[in-house]
Amino acid sequence: MLITRPTLMVNPQVARRNIRAMMEKFSRLKVRLRPHFKTHQSLEVGRWFKKEGVRAITVSSVEMAARFIADGWRDVLIALPMNPNEIPVINTWPDDLVLHLLVDHVAAVDRAAGLLKRPVEMWLKIDTGARRCGLVPGESKAVMDLIRRIERQPRMRLRGLLTHAGHTYAAGKPSGIRRCHRDSLAQMVAVKKWIRDAGGPELEISIGDTPACSVCNGFLGVSEVRCGNFVFYDIMQYRLGSCRLRDVAVRLICPVIGSYPQRGEVVVHGGKVHLSAENISGDDGKPFYGLVAACHADDPWPAPFPRASVRSLSQEHGVVYLGGKRAARFLPGDLLAVVPVHSCLTADLSTHMIDPRGRLVESTLPGGSDCHCVSPRN
Amino acid sequence: MLITRPTLMVNPQVARRNIRAMMEKFSRLKVRLRPHFKTHQSLEVGRWFKKEGVRAITVSSVEMAARFIADGWRDVLIALPMNPNEIPVINTWPDDLVLHLLVDHVAAVDRAAGLLKRPVEMWLKIDTGARRCGLVPGESKAVMDLIRRIERQPRMRLRGLLTHAGHTYAAGKPSGIRRCHRDSLAQMVAVKKWIRDAGGPELEISIGDTPACSVCNGFLGVSEVRCGNFVFYDIMQYRLGSCRLRDVAVRLICPVIGSYPQRGEVVVHGGKVHLSAENISGDDGKPFYGLVAACHADDPWPAPFPRASVRSLSQEHGVVYLGGKRAARFLPGDLLAVVPVHSCLTADLSTHMIDPRGRLVESTLPGGSDCHCVSPRN
Repeated sequence: MLITRPTLMVNPQVARRNIRAMMEKFSRLKVRLRPHFKTHQSLEVGRWFKKEGVRAITVSSVEMAARFIADGWRDVLIALPMNPNEIPVINTWPDDLVLHLLVDHVAAVDRAAGLLKRPVEMWLKIDTGARRCGLVPGESKAVMDLIRRIERQPRMRLRGLLTHAGHTYAAGKPSGIRRCHRDSLAQMVAVKKWIRDAGGPELEISIGDTPACSVCNGFLGVSEVRCGNFVFYDIMQYRLGSCRLRDVAVRLICPVIGSYPQRGEVVVHGGKVHLSAENISGDDGKPFYGLVAACHADDPWPAPFPRASVRSLSQEHGVVYLGGKRAARFLPGDLLAVVPVHSCLTADLSTHMIDPRGRLVESTLPGGSDCHCVSPRN
Repeated sequence: MLITRPTLMVNPQVARRNIRAMMEKFSRLKVRLRPHFKTHQSLEVGRWFKKEGVRAITVSSVEMAARFIADGWRDVLIALPMNPNEIPVINTWPDDLVLHLLVDHVAAVDRAAGLLKRPVEMWLKIDTGARRCGLVPGESKAVMDLIRRIERQPRMRLRGLLTHAGHTYAAGKPSGIRRCHRDSLAQMVAVKKWIRDAGGPELEISIGDTPACSVCNGFLGVSEVRCGNFVFYDIMQYRLGSCRLRDVAVRLICPVIGSYPQRGEVVVHGGKVHLSAENISGDDGKPFYGLVAACHADDPWPAPFPRASVRSLSQEHGVVYLGGKRAARFLPGDLLAVVPVHSCLTADLSTHMIDPRGRLVESTLPGGSDCHCVSPRN
């Protein structure tokens, strides 16, 4: 396989196993899985979900919604608080689309009101501890004001309460994730009950980040979960305990452009414009940007090298520690596979994706500075 | 001006002032300015350089070279060690192009040798302390082996020694940058002299990162400098002392999607897929991802708010601290301007660029998940 520049590789067996495991878990729990497509952003990976029975999806922007609506998806939740200035675009979408929007401020409803020309399902965004967006459960008056304001809009139907317990990512390990999740869900159930008791409507509950959906089993009272990263997983999820290393389904294939055995390092073409600047601290307290594996035709998906990692990134360069003997074996033009710290950002930066046999999986990923396609050859 | 999603804005007056200042400095010093176009990647900004008399440019990848060659540039240096597998692409480029390539390993020359069908100017990459790519000045045998190997290739002409003293970025302040620069240049001059004394060819010296080119004045013995970030600058350069805050020429305009005055914060649409995950430590030791200014028609380029910053980013969300009173003034649909920590990565993630009056400056930037253009209106 001739790969001449940084190229995203997915292992379809691994990704589809991840999809199937999450589908089975939540169909057993009788909770709707509305997977977040921001991780892969791939029409083809979307079809893998469809084959497993997924009909409802989550996206993180209006433009990402447009991408999947154009590919036939008809039940789409945009998990970013509604920007009233984007309503004119939303108005142009198909009539048979069930569109779900988020809101946490009366000004968004008021500003959208005069513009909206289609029915939408509204979700109140609740902040259960991530302190990013949402109403805090104690803000009873604001919650009820917002409910009443939505109820006055003929094209808005209030559907439920939604949270993203993003603070599970800071919980460090499965026990911490479980504690976060229990606490977040308890707050959601309490807000729902309080609204009903105060004469408000009966609401659904939507939750579910990848760490919680991977390690927790208590989802009583939940209508849907919206995890997304699990399709590919990554080193961040592996370190949290959400997955095994062998569940990570993507790698960035990078050409070696320098070999420095005296430092134990090689340099690859593969930088922040391909992997993003995202990093985590290693056991030695120093940040690293990915693990590293071989990439060759006879075993296209080997386990990462022990003690090897991407130690630093510039715009296009990645400095990879391999150890002296191993570094000497890799010369300019050879390939290495970087297992990314954060697969969502790495996938976002790619324009296409191949499988381990070099076949094109997706040719229309949105991003990256890499504006054309490889010609995969075996 | 109706901006509905994160949008890169450039102030042409500021950017062109930065270009002119650097041109004047190096024409006074009689050193060729071969600016690095990886920062802006914009054909239009490239034309601003051309108007100031620039004819020779630096890029950081084969694909970026292709972009500017197609726009008429004919003296291009690719500042990434040559990947032999990219030679077939290079062979297809115009005959009147002067193409400069980097090398630091005999294997790259050997592997490229059978493939190369056009003349190229070769530069030996020297590592003066950044420990990324390059031969270390002490490695005399490796340096001379590489020179002899290049001299045997009929299509390769050995042109000079090149370094990127990227460790100036860790120098913290102008005095540290000057020390780094003096030391790095002294090493380059010594290698050049050693090669000549050992019977090797007379070589040019190419150096020049933005911190050194901004704050240093000693460039004796240097043929060309390759700084690039100075066209836009950013918070990282401001903190190093390379520029004034008012020299930063780009901002990411972000719609407000949430207002949380009780936390002193607003949330904007503008995340790691727009600004990158790049951050620096603030005075309080906590990381931040950008400074923040207002964005309104009557003063389109106001100074950033004091004590305001982007405190965290997710994929699409940015959490912005403004202070309680100011946060309460910004509602969903309003706009804020984020002054980026690292303008190269922010520009790389954008697909188009407007000026403060909403006019399109560049519609074909390479990157980002944002795949279409705004319709700018005043």
